Amino acid sequence: MELTDMDDRDKAKLTPARARELFRGGAVTPTAGFSRGHAQANLIAVPVEDAFDFLLFAQRNPKPCPLLGVLEPGQVSSELLTGGDIRTDLPSYRIYRDGELVDEVPDATGWWRDDMVSFLIGCSFTFESALLDNGVPVAHIEQNRNVPMYRTSIDTVPAGRFAGPLVVSMRPVPASQVADAVRITSRYPAVHGAPVHVGDPGAIGIPDLAHPDFGEAVDLPPGAVPVFWACGVTPQAVVMASRPALAISHSPGHMLVTDARDLQYQVP
Amino acid sequence: MELTDMDDRDKAKLTPARARELFRGGAVTPTAGFSRGHAQANLIAVPVEDAFDFLLFAQRNPKPCPLLGVLEPGQVSSELLTGGDIRTDLPSYRIYRDGELVDEVPDATGWWRDDMVSFLIGCSFTFESALLDNGVPVAHIEQNRNVPMYRTSIDTVPAGRFAGPLVVSMRPVPASQVADAVRITSRYPAVHGAPVHVGDPGAIGIPDLAHPDFGEAVDLPPGAVPVFWACGVTPQAVVMASRPALAISHSPGHMLVTDARDLQYQVP
Repeated sequence: MELTDMDDRDKAKLTPARARELFRGGAVTPTAGFSRGHAQANLIAVPVEDAFDFLLFAQRNPKPCPLLGVLEPGQVSSELLTGGDIRTDLPSYRIYRDGELVDEVPDATGWWRDDMVSFLIGCSFTFESALLDNGVPVAHIEQNRNVPMYRTSIDTVPAGRFAGPLVVSMRPVPASQVADAVRITSRYPAVHGAPVHVGDPGAIGIPDLAHPDFGEAVDLPPGAVPVFWACGVTPQAVVMASRPALAISHSPGHMLVTDARDLQYQVP
Repeated sequence: MELTDMDDRDKAKLTPARARELFRGGAVTPTAGFSRGHAQANLIAVPVEDAFDFLLFAQRNPKPCPLLGVLEPGQVSSELLTGGDIRTDLPSYRIYRDGELVDEVPDATGWWRDDMVSFLIGCSFTFESALLDNGVPVAHIEQNRNVPMYRTSIDTVPAGRFAGPLVVSMRPVPASQVADAVRITSRYPAVHGAPVHVGDPGAIGIPDLAHPDFGEAVDLPPGAVPVFWACGVTPQAVVMASRPALAISHSPGHMLVTDARDLQYQVP
């Protein structure tokens, strides 16, 4: 079946291997809704000379950069994408040279270096499923938009050459369900976990919710409180600020569909 | 007050900074019971050329090697030991050259290299407090012994030059409280988390509980089930198997007393 013939139910039922095969074959689409129940991942790959610094950066910043897996220098597959190839199995890639976005491609093989180290970082799609399953509405899904993301005035903890601002995603939550949203997402530390901030956007350096730095603005329902979670786009903001010679990431929303199940990342 | 004048209550009340000052001054003692409510940490330090491999090893083996902090090459202090010095502030150190234990010293400065990277790894003292607070008995504390630890037939996930067997600690738990022990420790993934095995020691390659590879055997109370947790001694077993040129660790039981609180590591 071709991608164009698929409805949401078909996408949800695809095995991760079959979804990756479609993307490897050239299909370019956001991955929200694919292979329901399976975790998706952010990608950031850097040459080996920057890999220790980035691994340390992730260790020191587990809320924006929870690592689901790290491939060794030169490896292009792992148990998260059995039989797959990290250079081709995502729908779309962004290429950064010296911190500048220089290309966006459906196949990163042409930009790859043999010593690239790939970092796979948890994605909030996992906890959004848990929120919905628990009756907490997710506005951007209801409004059929990409989640709004913002640079903040909160600094990440630097490591070696990497430093930069924390990026957060925002979901408006009905006041009566803020506690539920905290409780539910705190059970998923591997996919950003509990919120980093609840309430006033100005307090973390966000001047206007209507103008996100990434993604799309959402309408705030009456009585909803803006709730902010650390976001997997942070590594891209940090790459832009820290300017390594080369970095390859997924395009926002165009994630790696992994073989891992969402529930593997639930604690306790 | 000198260490010799202290009873358990005095040790429990020491601030972490004061405890580290005592050890820096030459006091050599196991740290169980010091600075109650504050997390203690395992240390493993390796030269920078092995640091990426070890950091990757820890990322891939979060149950035996949950990282509380990593110091950058050459750093000897961090917010986990404010104002302290990682080379002197533990009561006792073990020195490994090419995988062989060559020295045990109260001050590691003489063995230190300027490019050492120090890894601080969570310690089960944190979840033992939680077990006791919840009414689950901890046999080795009741029997006033060191916890028994065993090499297993379970392999860790290799990373670069590091590979080796998983080491586990064992606590006998009354059958009616095994579920409680799982539930409680699973809330502390940063200090080894939930057990890796419940029941038959032979199934994970342990021939005889009476002969641990590290620590001391404990008596199994009638009706108790042996429960096995991943152990922070695993890095030392891995160093012995992988033979890096130099590694410096704490002596078993002689931990770093950190400024972090146990409860910081509780989820959700």
